[in-house]
Amino acid sequence: MEGPTVRMINQPLLPHRFEIVDYHDYRDTAESITTMVVRGAGAIGGTAGFAMAQAALQARHTHFHQDMAEAAEIVSATRPTAQNLFYAVRRVLRAVEAQGSDIAKAREAAVAEAVDIADDDAACCEAIGQNGAPLIQEGFRLSTHCNAGWLAFVDWGSALSPMFVAHRQGKRPFVFVDETKPRAQGARLTAWELLQEGVDHAVICDNATGHFMRTGQIDMVIVGSDRIAANGDVANKIGTYSSAVVARANGIPFYVAAPTSTIDPDCASGDLIPIEERDQDEVRKTWGWSDEGEFLSVRTTPDGSPARNPAFDVTPAEYVAGIITEKGVVEASVEGIASVARR
Amino acid sequence: MEGPTVRMINQPLLPHRFEIVDYHDYRDTAESITTMVVRGAGAIGGTAGFAMAQAALQARHTHFHQDMAEAAEIVSATRPTAQNLFYAVRRVLRAVEAQGSDIAKAREAAVAEAVDIADDDAACCEAIGQNGAPLIQEGFRLSTHCNAGWLAFVDWGSALSPMFVAHRQGKRPFVFVDETKPRAQGARLTAWELLQEGVDHAVICDNATGHFMRTGQIDMVIVGSDRIAANGDVANKIGTYSSAVVARANGIPFYVAAPTSTIDPDCASGDLIPIEERDQDEVRKTWGWSDEGEFLSVRTTPDGSPARNPAFDVTPAEYVAGIITEKGVVEASVEGIASVARR
Repeated sequence: MEGPTVRMINQPLLPHRFEIVDYHDYRDTAESITTMVVRGAGAIGGTAGFAMAQAALQARHTHFHQDMAEAAEIVSATRPTAQNLFYAVRRVLRAVEAQGSDIAKAREAAVAEAVDIADDDAACCEAIGQNGAPLIQEGFRLSTHCNAGWLAFVDWGSALSPMFVAHRQGKRPFVFVDETKPRAQGARLTAWELLQEGVDHAVICDNATGHFMRTGQIDMVIVGSDRIAANGDVANKIGTYSSAVVARANGIPFYVAAPTSTIDPDCASGDLIPIEERDQDEVRKTWGWSDEGEFLSVRTTPDGSPARNPAFDVTPAEYVAGIITEKGVVEASVEGIASVARR
Repeated sequence: MEGPTVRMINQPLLPHRFEIVDYHDYRDTAESITTMVVRGAGAIGGTAGFAMAQAALQARHTHFHQDMAEAAEIVSATRPTAQNLFYAVRRVLRAVEAQGSDIAKAREAAVAEAVDIADDDAACCEAIGQNGAPLIQEGFRLSTHCNAGWLAFVDWGSALSPMFVAHRQGKRPFVFVDETKPRAQGARLTAWELLQEGVDHAVICDNATGHFMRTGQIDMVIVGSDRIAANGDVANKIGTYSSAVVARANGIPFYVAAPTSTIDPDCASGDLIPIEERDQDEVRKTWGWSDEGEFLSVRTTPDGSPARNPAFDVTPAEYVAGIITEKGVVEASVEGIASVARR
């Protein structure tokens, strides 16, 4: 946030073009979450915080709390699955409410809280890297799904953070990057982050992960999460569940890395987490760069064939070897989650 | 085959354009297998047979058997995994050899044998449909991977054949069609075949199959195969293995449908089946139709990120509920396979 403007990387254009977008109205900032200009658990949380701060600056002095309540509704409705979104909205609302009727102070508090949320996220993700890196042995070949790196957070990331730390420690990890259809955040964003960091990797089709697991070429899986239930069930990008089941069948440890802001203590089990179903065209079409340098989509499916597009799935806690948080690595269980959850 | 010309559907253009290609030289016919103008276990077998027939017509009278041996090598080298390919080459060679030194008769026998291979394939696939349909109950929701329909064979197909028969019997099956990256044969070809046959279906990302299995929305899986080992291990399109493992975790029966020509009795176990690794660009780029009606590719991965592209994987026999063949449904075991294998 610079003054009243929220600035962010236009992620759908990566890795082919690096572009910063400016939003001057909190409604536009909120819409950037829906359209996935910004995506990723922590980055959604950070953006939601800044959208609420922007809303506080825009709210009418005469109807301040009414406008803030409306903003909270609009921002919360952008996507249904990510816990960090609701967490951030609640934090800014609380900070505002703590100022009572002093509107000027409430506006200041909203901005300060949004900055705090972002700073917390960066600090948590760095700690996740420190806590997760000891699990990665020299020369480990890792698998990850979607993008849970710095683009998905404010800095460092969750799943990739331990890999970045292990790489800086000289352990030379190798990463199999799931393409992560339909939107290919693995092929586009994770591969790009690993390139920037100099970490050896290969992009593979989501279909190929099981083959590399079965043939002994993957030592460990680390993925991120969009919401963790109180019992340790994990919602994450569609495809995570299959990866976990196949990892288990091959005796490969499957870890989830996430800041504790991802935990939803009010959600007893994963089956209660709403799963967003997105536009069919995300399945029917693929976006990318043509040989002529144009950003466009191509369609693979025939006219008349419907598609289904659930954006997330739930991995039952039994498949999770541990959850790597900023407070340490905990068991994916009611006890483990309770030991680190915050309200 | 029409006279000396082999004619086939240009499959990479489907479902957007229906085009027939003519090949006048057996080497070009063989190359259509490598470049995947034609693909699918049975269709590769049929094409290999016709390529060998064409080679018999082209072979020099003075060096007939030498030229045929060379043709057998060229045709066999087009792709390493499909058993039907080697099976068809061997059948034509045997038919030729049975004519001794009568070259004119050898040429005739080669063409007749190639036609027989194709006719056998169609008859086998129809029988597979009849044998598999009783496994499909009224209103079953099925999952399939890649394309094992009529485009992958001479007619009917393997995995889709029981679904087509069940549909004609009024059982109203619904099919979840795995997109099947990297080449999207599910999204492009299976969806198109189901549309033509009027079977209800939805295209889903390969990532989403597990989610629909876990949430009780899939009753049964039927896939095809490119080679079946003597112990019942099954090589099929990359991603099949993961589907089988997740099906097992959810108690969903996982069937393989294939003509017995797919069985390789000389291959003791799936780990001995060579897995073709194809061009990295199949992973990096996606081909399809642009909004302007152009057939082109878009790239999703960043410059500098390598990719890995195994085209097949092996599903151990333990995950297979049964193999649906033209001779009946058999167990995926040494005994089951031996009861139907032919040499």
